[in-house]
Amino acid sequence: MHLPTHDDVDAAARRLDGHAHRTPVLRSRFVDEELGAQVFFKAENLQRMGACKFRGAFNALSRFDAAQRRAGVVAFSSGNHAQAIALPARLLGMPATIVMPHDAPAAEVAATRGYGGNVVSYDRYTEDREQIGHEPAERHGLTLIPPYDHADVIAGQGTAAKELFDEVGALDAMFVCLGGGGLLAGSALAARALAPDRKLFGVEPEAGNDRQRSFRSGAIVHIDTPKTIADGAQTQHLGHLTFPIIQRDVNAILTASDAELVSAMRFFAERMKIIVEPTGWLGFAAARAVVPSTLKGQRVGVILSGGNVDLARFCALLGSAS
Amino acid sequence: MHLPTHDDVDAAARRLDGHAHRTPVLRSRFVDEELGAQVFFKAENLQRMGACKFRGAFNALSRFDAAQRRAGVVAFSSGNHAQAIALPARLLGMPATIVMPHDAPAAEVAATRGYGGNVVSYDRYTEDREQIGHEPAERHGLTLIPPYDHADVIAGQGTAAKELFDEVGALDAMFVCLGGGGLLAGSALAARALAPDRKLFGVEPEAGNDRQRSFRSGAIVHIDTPKTIADGAQTQHLGHLTFPIIQRDVNAILTASDAELVSAMRFFAERMKIIVEPTGWLGFAAARAVVPSTLKGQRVGVILSGGNVDLARFCALLGSAS
Repeated sequence: MHLPTHDDVDAAARRLDGHAHRTPVLRSRFVDEELGAQVFFKAENLQRMGACKFRGAFNALSRFDAAQRRAGVVAFSSGNHAQAIALPARLLGMPATIVMPHDAPAAEVAATRGYGGNVVSYDRYTEDREQIGHEPAERHGLTLIPPYDHADVIAGQGTAAKELFDEVGALDAMFVCLGGGGLLAGSALAARALAPDRKLFGVEPEAGNDRQRSFRSGAIVHIDTPKTIADGAQTQHLGHLTFPIIQRDVNAILTASDAELVSAMRFFAERMKIIVEPTGWLGFAAARAVVPSTLKGQRVGVILSGGNVDLARFCALLGSAS
Repeated sequence: MHLPTHDDVDAAARRLDGHAHRTPVLRSRFVDEELGAQVFFKAENLQRMGACKFRGAFNALSRFDAAQRRAGVVAFSSGNHAQAIALPARLLGMPATIVMPHDAPAAEVAATRGYGGNVVSYDRYTEDREQIGHEPAERHGLTLIPPYDHADVIAGQGTAAKELFDEVGALDAMFVCLGGGGLLAGSALAARALAPDRKLFGVEPEAGNDRQRSFRSGAIVHIDTPKTIADGAQTQHLGHLTFPIIQRDVNAILTASDAELVSAMRFFAERMKIIVEPTGWLGFAAARAVVPSTLKGQRVGVILSGGNVDLARFCALLGSAS
């Protein structure tokens, strides 16, 4: 099994140049004072289609050959991966079939259709989305791009961390949210070359800590779809590519509760004026809990993975905590 | 009467270096496609204390002499100017007295107090805030810094536009929201040197179009406090410094309705994942109305002035339009 390397991240960065936004690195003196550290937020909520998943998907689709482009791509997603596939497919002129859960946020379904994606629904609590995705792929010769367990997706996702290191230099610690582990594994590859001494933390929802258990036990743990507001991290297991990279390069897997995510959303909406999806707050929520004890005075990176949350849901989540 | 010049903007930029954030310039392909133009958003909602007014206030306070710093500053504000004065006062180690309307957003009052400001309340529909501000200034030897009609404030405000031009080069048109005109006048000074051929538009709330009438008549028009959701633009008249600069350098004053502001807020929260206060949307709301007819294919700048809106109010405004 060939694992992607930091050279693949560099190659992905060249492919993405001019197609992905070079997102800003945001600072907050208020955060720095509260945490006693220097915190650098890579604002991938400001990425095209609102999430860093655009990077991985664009990198994967841009490597299709002519026959693959003609037949098109199929993908399954709880949200961001859907738009992440639909938009590059349109940009590259290929058809896209997107398998989405029936309870996916309305804004994400609308945006996916808006990018020209053909949306197929399924029930995420009773049906197996991978089976539903593979069937049309085989029947029509579509190329299936999974949301995280794919070398090109991992390498593309790693370009966000690479940009962060390129812009701010070495970091002592970095916090990355974690669903299937594509962003975390890609960030780990970027960090190997660019910040070898840093501590890298993956953060998952407390409600589904299969990744923490996998990391500690050394074998991939499978769970039922966890019920958490971090809908981008409702994956059931790590991937066969993401797991060994995470095992090798990540220092620890931490967890954050839904209450901590809402607290982070409110804090940032008030203090930093940005909208980040619940999943995107996992890294900061964990940093907030860890930093006071162990990271004082250090330089800390946090990747805010995306901003795709229904506004009505965003407001309801904030209201429920006030 | 000495009007500030673009040299004063340059000097302000040097004073602000290392103290103000160099805020990002945001792009949206979606906006570009909808409007048929290239639109560059200067995201001053991501500025320190959440608004570009930090620039003007910091520049003004940093020029105080030792005696002025000892006695401290007094300011009156419907919101952003309060925090804009309180924060630099704390940074520069001087006391700050802030006169705020009784119905100012709770988050802004709390933030002003959080920065160490001594908040004094008044009724904005029955009392004259300038009288209330001048009295303590005279009694205790405080230096009053008005929110817009002050050469150092205007020059400091102009640094946002200067950064925008420095980063993206020449523009064909720029839209700047307009209360008392400090940001617009400062932007005009920056534009004189850096983008002399551009069209510069000021945008005010439809409910209080005194500035449009002043601009057209050539004399400052006074009105009652207008009732609009753009609480940062509820000023009653232009200033004696801002008016002549605006008369000389601005091409037109446009207006935007409250409904257009809410539509802009929703559009951007969904598409750009940022929180901007209603006043901050004036420029974009007008650009959206004007661009389709006259600005096709052009390079357009919009200054998003700030992001200080109560989250509960933000959600209520979005809810009322859905």
